[in-house]
Amino acid sequence: MEDMLLMTPGPTMVPEEVKKIAGMQPFHHRTEEFYQLFSRLNENLKKIFQTKNEVITLTSSGTGGMEAAVANLFSAGDKVLVASIGYFGERFYDIAKAYGLEAEIYDFGWGNAVDLDILEDKLKKGNYKALLVTHNETSTGVTNDIENIAKIANQYNVPVIVDAVSSLGGIPLKMDEWGIDAVITCSQKCLMSPPGLSFIALSDRAWEMTKTSNLPKYYFDLRKAREGVLKLKPDTPATPAVSTIMAVAKATDMLLEKGLDNVYKKQSEYGKKVRKYVKELGLELLPKEEVASDLITAIKVPERYKASDIINYMKEKHRVLITGGQGPLKGKIIRIGHMGYLTDEMLDKALYALEDAISSL
Amino acid sequence: MEDMLLMTPGPTMVPEEVKKIAGMQPFHHRTEEFYQLFSRLNENLKKIFQTKNEVITLTSSGTGGMEAAVANLFSAGDKVLVASIGYFGERFYDIAKAYGLEAEIYDFGWGNAVDLDILEDKLKKGNYKALLVTHNETSTGVTNDIENIAKIANQYNVPVIVDAVSSLGGIPLKMDEWGIDAVITCSQKCLMSPPGLSFIALSDRAWEMTKTSNLPKYYFDLRKAREGVLKLKPDTPATPAVSTIMAVAKATDMLLEKGLDNVYKKQSEYGKKVRKYVKELGLELLPKEEVASDLITAIKVPERYKASDIINYMKEKHRVLITGGQGPLKGKIIRIGHMGYLTDEMLDKALYALEDAISSL
Repeated sequence: MEDMLLMTPGPTMVPEEVKKIAGMQPFHHRTEEFYQLFSRLNENLKKIFQTKNEVITLTSSGTGGMEAAVANLFSAGDKVLVASIGYFGERFYDIAKAYGLEAEIYDFGWGNAVDLDILEDKLKKGNYKALLVTHNETSTGVTNDIENIAKIANQYNVPVIVDAVSSLGGIPLKMDEWGIDAVITCSQKCLMSPPGLSFIALSDRAWEMTKTSNLPKYYFDLRKAREGVLKLKPDTPATPAVSTIMAVAKATDMLLEKGLDNVYKKQSEYGKKVRKYVKELGLELLPKEEVASDLITAIKVPERYKASDIINYMKEKHRVLITGGQGPLKGKIIRIGHMGYLTDEMLDKALYALEDAISSL
Repeated sequence: MEDMLLMTPGPTMVPEEVKKIAGMQPFHHRTEEFYQLFSRLNENLKKIFQTKNEVITLTSSGTGGMEAAVANLFSAGDKVLVASIGYFGERFYDIAKAYGLEAEIYDFGWGNAVDLDILEDKLKKGNYKALLVTHNETSTGVTNDIENIAKIANQYNVPVIVDAVSSLGGIPLKMDEWGIDAVITCSQKCLMSPPGLSFIALSDRAWEMTKTSNLPKYYFDLRKAREGVLKLKPDTPATPAVSTIMAVAKATDMLLEKGLDNVYKKQSEYGKKVRKYVKELGLELLPKEEVASDLITAIKVPERYKASDIINYMKEKHRVLITGGQGPLKGKIIRIGHMGYLTDEMLDKALYALEDAISSL
């Protein structure tokens, strides 16, 4: 049977070339083969993160990478601001609370982006040790203006920690140039690979912060992991998900061969195409057009439909998987992911399935 | 080129059927396909752990599973005893220290097993909140007598946390029957799958302990993970390594079809065969025969050889990968892993490669 077409916020479709590698015998992680592989991955990741610093590979989901940021940069009682625009903003807040930070969440509203004026006002007065913010909020289909968020935060000397789990490698994020202090992503979204790895890079300032952090960590100890990455024959403290590293090395080769700018351009076209199509079907986007994500589109479900009916119809009749709303948006929206590996044919199939559902139900 | 034959303490060889599945498009983790897969895996794991309680799947290496045990069962300042017989005993101690436990390590010596009399003496006097111990110490090729260790610990009402990362599914470990409170393992050793997942099961007493633990955790929060496992449509709090779950489900199907007792019997035969062969070559085992592991054999390197020469010769000439010593045993031993997926032909090839190295160098 044909694979289900995953138009979801991850796991996303994995290209044939990458799947083939994911199905190979994993290397042993203390061998020349692995050192070469890991060096290649690390170089690829630096280009995609657009940073001169090391990118750390963790065997975990993106949430583990977010936790690594919290556990390595802060100490109990540190005051941080979470600028939340949805489900994953709240997750960042939950992690910060779990680690005993004095975390404050400001909810800009599910469906909105961070309002820069409000943010500036908060940062000016708050005396925060850091700002935690989501780049692309998959729960609402909204992309934050990280470039300007980072600019404001840097004006007030507040380090910026960015959850780029669903965005990195899909839409522009210039870590060093924009002055971002931590960027976290994972394997199964824009990096076109199976789930199981997260990646995190820190700025020089953030590496300094790791020196004074007193929170417990071992598996997610980024300083120890960096020692491994910096070796002439780079490795990881514990056995990593070698097969997935092999897969991501291949997928990032492909991404860089295509060229980041070309990827961004294509992604932007896909975003526009989906939104245009959705509106032509008479449907309404959840967010305003100007903050709508090019990676995932959140659509309000009209009164006459049930979200689950649309999802099930597309799944059963067309083998296209989209997702519904999370938290307060459950039952109120449907979400079409269009991040990562995607061809025109795949997108057309998904849009046709949506049209068929809307006209048939 | 033929795959390198990994005779290592993991990653180990992955059977063709399992690799094929690891290379498939991962399911989305909020679908019926995934719920069925995860249910099947969970049932398989309970049989292999030999427990009535839930087994929790974490996307991490085995070290992450060990950390999950520490972070969920204890509070800062808790006094625990680590009965160490090598590198991974020390790792357990390091994790406990990283989390602020009052951890005490007793080193029974690299190459020895835990001495039951000494252990009893320690447990009698120590007022420990728990005992942390390695089942099969890959750094020295020694297997601890967990059944009797647990018996003694239970006499003194000390919960037993067992690192079974390299043993579970290869040699007997009867969690419930032996009265073990936590068992941790991973995907890439006896479970014949690619690395990237760890698994942990807790006794009723250990689940009680999680209620009072005050250590920070989010990604490794076992109580939250258990809620997911207990759902009618079981899932995980964050996106798991779906492809690896697919692989382990298949591999554990295969293991259970073969039958645990048959697997244990075969593994015991392999252990005996390797030790006999090694001794016939005039080589000496690191541990005493009666505590030698059936999963990995540690061999003293005679004066006239260099460990790295033997390893390189076997690798270059025969494409058989064995490993050297860790820590204080670096350069002093070689280790032949024979855990997980292994056929008579593979083992013969490895032993012949060893013989050739010994006679040619």
